[in-house]
Amino acid sequence: MDKQFLNDNFLLTTETAKKLYHHYAANMPIFDFHCHLNPKEIADDKQFVDLSEVWLGGDHYKWRLMREYGIEEKFISGSADGFQKFLKYAQIMPYCIGNPLYVWTHLELKRYFGIDTVLNANTAKQVWESANQKLKELSVRKMLKLSNVKTIFTTDDPVDSLQYHRSISDDKSFDIKVFPAMRPDKAINIHLPTFVPYIKQLSEVVGTQIKSLDDLLVALAKRIEFFNEHGCCCSDHALDTVPHVNLDKKKAQSAFEKSLKGSIDSVDADNFRFYLLLFLGEQYHKHGWVQQYHIGALRNNSTIALQQMGADTGFDAINDSTFAPQLASLLNAQAVKSTLPKTILYNLNPRDNEVLATIKNCFSQSEIVSKIQFGSAWWFNDQRDGISKQLEALSQVGLLSKFVGMLTDSRSFMSFPRHEYFRRVLCKKLGEHIESGEYPLSNLDLVGGIVQDICFNNAVLYFSK
Amino acid sequence: MDKQFLNDNFLLTTETAKKLYHHYAANMPIFDFHCHLNPKEIADDKQFVDLSEVWLGGDHYKWRLMREYGIEEKFISGSADGFQKFLKYAQIMPYCIGNPLYVWTHLELKRYFGIDTVLNANTAKQVWESANQKLKELSVRKMLKLSNVKTIFTTDDPVDSLQYHRSISDDKSFDIKVFPAMRPDKAINIHLPTFVPYIKQLSEVVGTQIKSLDDLLVALAKRIEFFNEHGCCCSDHALDTVPHVNLDKKKAQSAFEKSLKGSIDSVDADNFRFYLLLFLGEQYHKHGWVQQYHIGALRNNSTIALQQMGADTGFDAINDSTFAPQLASLLNAQAVKSTLPKTILYNLNPRDNEVLATIKNCFSQSEIVSKIQFGSAWWFNDQRDGISKQLEALSQVGLLSKFVGMLTDSRSFMSFPRHEYFRRVLCKKLGEHIESGEYPLSNLDLVGGIVQDICFNNAVLYFSK
Amino acid sequence: MDKQFLNDNFLLTTETAKKLYHHYAANMPIFDFHCHLNPKEIADDKQFVDLSEVWLGGDHYKWRLMREYGIEEKFISGSADGFQKFLKYAQIMPYCIGNPLYVWTHLELKRYFGIDTVLNANTAKQVWESANQKLKELSVRKMLKLSNVKTIFTTDDPVDSLQYHRSISDDKSFDIKVFPAMRPDKAINIHLPTFVPYIKQLSEVVGTQIKSLDDLLVALAKRIEFFNEHGCCCSDHALDTVPHVNLDKKKAQSAFEKSLKGSIDSVDADNFRFYLLLFLGEQYHKHGWVQQYHIGALRNNSTIALQQMGADTGFDAINDSTFAPQLASLLNAQAVKSTLPKTILYNLNPRDNEVLATIKNCFSQSEIVSKIQFGSAWWFNDQRDGISKQLEALSQVGLLSKFVGMLTDSRSFMSFPRHEYFRRVLCKKLGEHIESGEYPLSNLDLVGGIVQDICFNNAVLYFSK
Repeated sequence: MDKQFLNDNFLLTTETAKKLYHHYAANMPIFDFHCHLNPKEIADDKQFVDLSEVWLGGDHYKWRLMREYGIEEKFISGSADGFQKFLKYAQIMPYCIGNPLYVWTHLELKRYFGIDTVLNANTAKQVWESANQKLKELSVRKMLKLSNVKTIFTTDDPVDSLQYHRSISDDKSFDIKVFPAMRPDKAINIHLPTFVPYIKQLSEVVGTQIKSLDDLLVALAKRIEFFNEHGCCCSDHALDTVPHVNLDKKKAQSAFEKSLKGSIDSVDADNFRFYLLLFLGEQYHKHGWVQQYHIGALRNNSTIALQQMGADTGFDAINDSTFAPQLASLLNAQAVKSTLPKTILYNLNPRDNEVLATIKNCFSQSEIVSKIQFGSAWWFNDQRDGISKQLEALSQVGLLSKFVGMLTDSRSFMSFPRHEYFRRVLCKKLGEHIESGEYPLSNLDLVGGIVQDICFNNAVLYFSK
Repeated sequence: MDKQFLNDNFLLTTETAKKLYHHYAANMPIFDFHCHLNPKEIADDKQFVDLSEVWLGGDHYKWRLMREYGIEEKFISGSADGFQKFLKYAQIMPYCIGNPLYVWTHLELKRYFGIDTVLNANTAKQVWESANQKLKELSVRKMLKLSNVKTIFTTDDPVDSLQYHRSISDDKSFDIKVFPAMRPDKAINIHLPTFVPYIKQLSEVVGTQIKSLDDLLVALAKRIEFFNEHGCCCSDHALDTVPHVNLDKKKAQSAFEKSLKGSIDSVDADNFRFYLLLFLGEQYHKHGWVQQYHIGALRNNSTIALQQMGADTGFDAINDSTFAPQLASLLNAQAVKSTLPKTILYNLNPRDNEVLATIKNCFSQSEIVSKIQFGSAWWFNDQRDGISKQLEALSQVGLLSKFVGMLTDSRSFMSFPRHEYFRRVLCKKLGEHIESGEYPLSNLDLVGGIVQDICFNNAVLYFSK
Repeated sequence: MDKQFLNDNFLLTTETAKKLYHHYAANMPIFDFHCHLNPKEIADDKQFVDLSEVWLGGDHYKWRLMREYGIEEKFISGSADGFQKFLKYAQIMPYCIGNPLYVWTHLELKRYFGIDTVLNANTAKQVWESANQKLKELSVRKMLKLSNVKTIFTTDDPVDSLQYHRSISDDKSFDIKVFPAMRPDKAINIHLPTFVPYIKQLSEVVGTQIKSLDDLLVALAKRIEFFNEHGCCCSDHALDTVPHVNLDKKKAQSAFEKSLKGSIDSVDADNFRFYLLLFLGEQYHKHGWVQQYHIGALRNNSTIALQQMGADTGFDAINDSTFAPQLASLLNAQAVKSTLPKTILYNLNPRDNEVLATIKNCFSQSEIVSKIQFGSAWWFNDQRDGISKQLEALSQVGLLSKFVGMLTDSRSFMSFPRHEYFRRVLCKKLGEHIESGEYPLSNLDLVGGIVQDICFNNAVLYFSK
């Protein structure tokens, strides 16, 4: 029956959606081109001691809801034992109605453990034992296999040695591709206290002291070469705000020199950041990489939490700054120099969907299919309505059919059912569109092919050099 | 039949929605924690001379639509008699299709007068007579009883004597709780011409001349004590814009001193406003109050109307200023001092829904359920789609189940059917969510309990000290 | 069958929607009060050599999608022949699923050529031949007749001689009204390099040298008189950004004088632009014209494309600047002087829908029905969801029933099916609203009348002097 919880057809509201999902989408492999999985854990083929470690160990989505419910921090990131934490999570589950965690949690139970039990305080013990039992047979690599993953891009700092990526690719018994993706935020964020220490760290890795902007550019170019040799074809940038245009190298040099002496203002920071993005884009372009811009996070809003737990622990939000002219200028500056690489734009504030969806098509390029992409609904938007709105904005002003599709952006090896969730929303949307009479019903194979492209093929093509 | 106008199941699109509404939501009492009802009218148990007085006397929602239709001001806020005004309103009714006033108007006729007639120019006379007849038996208190209201928070200036609140609470024959809520806008809005006269007025009320910032803080603290003794547990702030961070008392002092001499700039105003909000938050926290921030109105846009009719007469709009970093800083500044009270955030521009929904969960606190709330769809958003979007944003990134729910924000004693309207939209949303297979259908009592919590119980708990 | 591609009931999801569309909307004539049709082509009753000329000659919507697909510019705006270009367009068609071009293209084939074939690479040749055959019998005027167009407002520069408008109105054999609408952007955009040359051009047209702001105002007033004599009752402004308030003529004079000498800053530009808008509004008001403000485009984002192809070739996007207080000030400044004309406000960023929908009702005027209008979903928003959101925002805070409705904003003589598309979305929305029990089903004639008003009658009334 179609109303049953997580039944085969959940979210699939039309006959066409059901056909598209089951005949075309469901069995497509996964190309996860942006995630935060730990390559060491793949290299080691890690096993988890219990469901708490794999589920609650680093998942700030879950932590936020537990905190909102009023749960003590001890049971969230603190000293309580695995089952105690899990029990608290189970207890809040029924009250997560409407939140994607409710669906994700139960999909993960179903897909990785074969558990259909609805999780709550009463069923927690039974789920815990059953899942932990099955977890003994589930290593990290087995989870990836089970999820039909073909390729993963992790997220790595330029200073990373990539030793685990080498070790994974050297292991011929494991055929899932795991490539690094470079995230040089620390080298760009000149306004943060992390900048000067990072320059020192980078100096050590490249073996020359970085004393000028040119030194820094050389060092970064070297690391890009190094990543490139390890199969990297993708970078990622957190543009919490987008800098104002600066094409003047001298201004960037001046900002860099000031920063080493300890004092820059926000104009300096923009001058430096814009120039560095320009330089990096040129390098990416030279190597045929894709660059990703993640725009609009408002991070570390709780000083107390930042001091106690550090960054990325669940105290970030959506910003509302304006950035359209700056972003257009940044892409244009690269296009004018003929160094604009393929680029994926992500926004954290869903109100900016239409801005990105229209800016992207000002920088198309002959022979490259959908060169600039409007990326999948990011972070807080990774849920039914957020996904649906991103697909809507994209399709109404561009070519949904050439979209590179979904990624997990996750730290968890069990988050691949988010691809299933995305695919269902995609098929729902296309099904409704077709059945409203806006596209011919007759040639389902063609639309099925488009669905498969969005699920997998478009990304394969897009990330090939 | 389910398509009939305002039939029992209107807006309830699924079987689950119908069950949730009729079995769980419909009979819940009302805890209206933000409205603009006049406590004197409750104390006096006022009766209205006719439908025009109760409906058109102060309702700028109705006035705006009448003006848009081109009706002369004489028939709106002017000298025309009650029936003439009512006739004009009846005449535009059929043309209000799609506007919430159409539904509100007919729900009010139905629920307070038992009138099912569709209102238009032809039926106006008959409705007028029938309603006025029944109005003879309907005092203010009877309306509140009929609406199943348990508790009301009015909106009161710190200088208010609260005499009517005392008189209501002294009357043991009346068991609906009517508490004041403090709205100290005039003490904060240093940039407005109302500020200096207000300081004088406040001086008189507290009996000491306010000559410095410290004097002002002492005076406000006294009034908070006074309100607290009258059962107040809630304040309200109109943050048309959110001030930039200022933690420096000296700057606030300087701004205050300048203002008494007549000249401040916008930086001064922000310095003062931020500091005062910080101080007030501390006081609210000490007393266990809830603070409410209403963000983003663009007020008094017509100079002519402001001069002729004054403020709050229907010439306000939605602003588009950005405020996320300032708001996060304001809450964080209170959290750092351990003086952040429970807080409800409201936005007037619906494009800011996701900003509020994510900022709130950066300031959760152990042992307090959903300490920071994303408030119900406010003012222009108080309609089907606005309510629906607020519920969606809230549930997708937080715990809808712990939401304190609806309030009327109204000047009219007949606006409580807005709670019915809200509850229908809520049940519609949950019904669709469940029937799409995203939540188990099996345990309807649990979801019914959540519905009842959102309708009433959550607010009772949240506002208890 | 209701799921068939572009069947009679496509988009009409309820029985009520079907009745409203077929019995009331479908046969209403068209009053297209904003488009970019070339009056010379109407005067000449132009015929097109082939489908490529009529469809692909100047349509940057189509160009953008072809570029996104990676098609060479040669086949877009370049040297390839008509069929080659058409074939490329046909080839991408199936991949335009979800984009309004898919529906528009097939509706145009159906309505103008009677072709039901689904366009793709395989059917391209057959469609090409069949359409070209029929195109021999289809002149520009026949297309307008076939579309049931009664009135068109073209978009014309103040320096235009209006010779073609005269020639059309002199031709008594042609009964479609074609009036000019004035677009004085070049006289206002003092910050662009086009400004000084334009002043020279305007000087020549009015026959006196424009050396001061007063000269310019006199010249523009003369051109408004001239346009008015040619039946013009409407102007149009591209407000990419909305200037900050300036009521001081001296500042505008100073900016104008500086601009002739070659150097102004952004404050000068705002001072001039605001003042000029104020002056023009006064002139429009005097003549009973309607003014249109198009707000929020981010234009010419690709420097390369601008240099190679010029403006308006498909390289524009949606901006995210804030403007609510400025816009309210601009309307208020006109209202205070009693010179505010009827005004239609359009936004390019859909996140601003609610801002416009609420600002407009701060400037209502007795005896004028919906004096300030929130205009139809513009440009990138002219698609199912964009239209639907605009209607929703409008109806929730104002009178949808008094909306002046749809316009094509198009350069193509075949874009009138966009009115059909709009009408279907409108009837769908009203149908769902009524069948949800929020409006009486009983009096369909009344709602049908409202639909007809929005389709045609409201615009006729609104644009009558």
